[in-house]
Amino acid sequence: MTTGDLDPKNWDEFRARAHALLDDSLDKMSTADQGRVWTPLPNQLKAQIEQPLPRGGGDVDQILRAILPYGVGNTHPRFFGWVHGAGAPSGVLADIIAAAMNVNAGGRNHVAPVVEKQVINWCADVMGFGETASGLIVSGTSLATVVALKTARDQANALASIRGVPQGRLVGYTSNQAHSCIKRAFDLLGLGTDSLRLVPCNDAFEMDTDALIAQIEADVAAGHQPFLVAGTAGAVNMGAIDDLETIADIAAEHKLWFHVDGAFGAAGRLGTAAADRLTGIARADSLAFDFHKWFQVNYEAGLVLIRNDAAHRASFSDRAEYLRGTERGLAGGAFWAVDYGPELSRGFRALKVWAHLVEHGFDALGATIDRNIALAGALRARIVAHERLQPMAPTPLNINCFRYTSDRVDMDILNTEIVIALQESGVAVPSTTVLNGETAIRVNITNHRTQESDLDVLIEAVVEQGARLEKVLDR
Amino acid sequence: MTTGDLDPKNWDEFRARAHALLDDSLDKMSTADQGRVWTPLPNQLKAQIEQPLPRGGGDVDQILRAILPYGVGNTHPRFFGWVHGAGAPSGVLADIIAAAMNVNAGGRNHVAPVVEKQVINWCADVMGFGETASGLIVSGTSLATVVALKTARDQANALASIRGVPQGRLVGYTSNQAHSCIKRAFDLLGLGTDSLRLVPCNDAFEMDTDALIAQIEADVAAGHQPFLVAGTAGAVNMGAIDDLETIADIAAEHKLWFHVDGAFGAAGRLGTAAADRLTGIARADSLAFDFHKWFQVNYEAGLVLIRNDAAHRASFSDRAEYLRGTERGLAGGAFWAVDYGPELSRGFRALKVWAHLVEHGFDALGATIDRNIALAGALRARIVAHERLQPMAPTPLNINCFRYTSDRVDMDILNTEIVIALQESGVAVPSTTVLNGETAIRVNITNHRTQESDLDVLIEAVVEQGARLEKVLDR
Ligand SMILES: Cc1ncc(COP(=O)(O)O)c(C=O)c1O
Ligand SMILES: Cc1ncc(COP(=O)(O)O)c(C=O)c1O
Repeated sequence: MTTGDLDPKNWDEFRARAHALLDDSLDKMSTADQGRVWTPLPNQLKAQIEQPLPRGGGDVDQILRAILPYGVGNTHPRFFGWVHGAGAPSGVLADIIAAAMNVNAGGRNHVAPVVEKQVINWCADVMGFGETASGLIVSGTSLATVVALKTARDQANALASIRGVPQGRLVGYTSNQAHSCIKRAFDLLGLGTDSLRLVPCNDAFEMDTDALIAQIEADVAAGHQPFLVAGTAGAVNMGAIDDLETIADIAAEHKLWFHVDGAFGAAGRLGTAAADRLTGIARADSLAFDFHKWFQVNYEAGLVLIRNDAAHRASFSDRAEYLRGTERGLAGGAFWAVDYGPELSRGFRALKVWAHLVEHGFDALGATIDRNIALAGALRARIVAHERLQPMAPTPLNINCFRYTSDRVDMDILNTEIVIALQESGVAVPSTTVLNGETAIRVNITNHRTQESDLDVLIEAVVEQGARLEKVLDR
Repeated sequence: MTTGDLDPKNWDEFRARAHALLDDSLDKMSTADQGRVWTPLPNQLKAQIEQPLPRGGGDVDQILRAILPYGVGNTHPRFFGWVHGAGAPSGVLADIIAAAMNVNAGGRNHVAPVVEKQVINWCADVMGFGETASGLIVSGTSLATVVALKTARDQANALASIRGVPQGRLVGYTSNQAHSCIKRAFDLLGLGTDSLRLVPCNDAFEMDTDALIAQIEADVAAGHQPFLVAGTAGAVNMGAIDDLETIADIAAEHKLWFHVDGAFGAAGRLGTAAADRLTGIARADSLAFDFHKWFQVNYEAGLVLIRNDAAHRASFSDRAEYLRGTERGLAGGAFWAVDYGPELSRGFRALKVWAHLVEHGFDALGATIDRNIALAGALRARIVAHERLQPMAPTPLNINCFRYTSDRVDMDILNTEIVIALQESGVAVPSTTVLNGETAIRVNITNHRTQESDLDVLIEAVVEQGARLEKVLDR
């Protein structure tokens, strides 16, 4: 029994503690469909967390146990907010093993890089990136986008200097429905947010590809250097899938790096309901998507895939002396994550992804996604059928944006209040967004626990709160 | 019992699986000081991991269990490679709870942001950043550095445009012993690696502050715009601590952002052995350090602290419509991580940090650090005392760089081979680095399990392998 400074003084006691907390966790997981969706953190518990600087050691188990009910609520079947996956109980198995191993997965010759590389290979296959693509598991699509866009930026700069052409300002394109992570990546990478052109959309909130061409031509005429177009596979507001095939054609013609943000939508390739609208992903130069969304892997894990392994490495691999690899020994190993991303030390989050994919299999994950898309269709039918509810956008995938109508009060305020009231009631958690300047109730379904009956509960609660709040606001 | 698509079909069976894997993990953790330090992954197990795309579901427990021995080895008391913390068994408790909750800690009103903010507040206090500082838990020092340097970059650009001065090229300074993450951040942020000046060091591998001043003056004269100096508190090669107080003075005089890379060294403020050389941290504008190194928190977790909360927010907070906060409901909450860093979705890694700090207390962590520094001194004495061993650098903190000398064979090759042989023998894991062009055996002690007897085993093994390999290489 190891007796390091921070090892348990009594291993039997420690073992008992761990098993007891595991039982509490399993109780929580197995009742994920019961009770309130979201409950605010009680002040007394908050105060215990916010204790004075702990100089001496203290007990944590009681607080660890006590916080279990006060998460976001995304494990509950009536959580419809933002784009949160529900996760799967099986995730705890891999996390227990990962905690015991406590590896640094930044590189070297051990099991973690093998596991990570295998996840990358499977996903490259499923996404149509082929066997020579490279990739990296990161915290989520935001960082995946940074990795992809840095590679694109560096390639553009390198090409310009190889060709000896005078370097213009690099400019890129995405739709005005694209996720803010693209703009944030432009900012981080020093490209400047003004260099990202937000191309307008058609009525279905898909990028207007004629407008894209016109903007590219205008930029070229102005002496700028177009280098990237980012298509969206599943826009965050209402799920639009850009016409990726046409964007791929335009990118090829204008020699742009074609990136796809498939944060949740790319997972549609696992099922059948949306796959035929996602074929263009297989033509992308890079793809960013999340395991913690529609793959239902526990938070956090996302992936970047890059078709050109050499370009990817060129942008990140520059190891210091003390990280030099060797042919043999622990400093060996083929896949060093530090050569593919901005991080050096990294935990073993690849393990939970690998275990999730193997335990459930890609087909079952695809079936869940298809079922969610069908549920979104069923919800839309209920919205359309109700006289006081009005759809605010099409429902191409898994998201409904709609509102409770009123000719007596401000509908933006009314619908914002409905959503807050629903959240506080504990009955259901939708979120809001703004489409064409109008506030909508936004119901996203990326949840393997949601049943059709949950949609009835939601609609009933929206209508009830709508009627109540209309009266309150009308005073 | 919830019956989502990806929930266990049989919860009792699942409960038994989880407890069984936990027992295996506890067995592994409680024997962390036994057996080989590092063992390469067997080919058969590698093949099981690299299985064909899993379409249907399958068993994972057998493989999860089987990989336990094939990590990096950093949990073992004779792991001395790179700068790896050993972690603590207590980490598994928080990870079990975090897996059950499966929150997205990117923002909103729930327990995770409260826990994260509390960790930040305690650390701001301990590091001398005061109550108004801001911060963010990230994967490690590499990303923490990106966050800090982006804030510095944006402030410099904003100041230049407010003052209406013509904008020169932003240039920054760090020592030639600084970690490569500074250079990588310059690259990522679009500043260009040429814009980072590597200031030479004195004989103790500390930044030569006269050379720093001269370089700043030369850059100003050349029309560049100096904006940042990054001091190092614990250089990765041999542990040097820059003269942070003098650098702080120079930064103040030249109006530079003063960043400190304290990846492992900043933790020295918890103890007494090094604290008096780390007072300058309290004058920094930003600090990056890791919990997974000398704090002994499990991988992965690091922290960025930024003195000026407004500057920090200005560089990162720009939420999209669908992320709009509200006063009430789940979209409330004071601390949204997305306002302070490049990530949106995030797991609940704050929990294991919080639990670690509370369970062990800052004082015990400081005592462990002091003990490691004393062990490094004891190892140095053994090196100096041995006629065939030669120190290659001072030992200001927890790292010894030395080599096995020979007048018969190439010492760079010899010492590289010694390290590989030690790793492969399973007896001890040092790593190598290059100092002044010469390869050194590098022994880093950031491990709460290391005892003085482990140093004897190491020295004996180095000398034995040295004598053996000298003969082999001399043929
Ligand atoms: C379309 C889209 N892109 C990017 C993101 C950001 O992903 P992450 O939160 O994993 O960084 C999201 C998150 O909801 C998204 O929906
Ligand atoms: C001094 C120093 N800075 C930065 C880093 C990078 O830290 P991380 O691996 O957490 O990104 C290290 C890692 O060893 C380090 O020693």
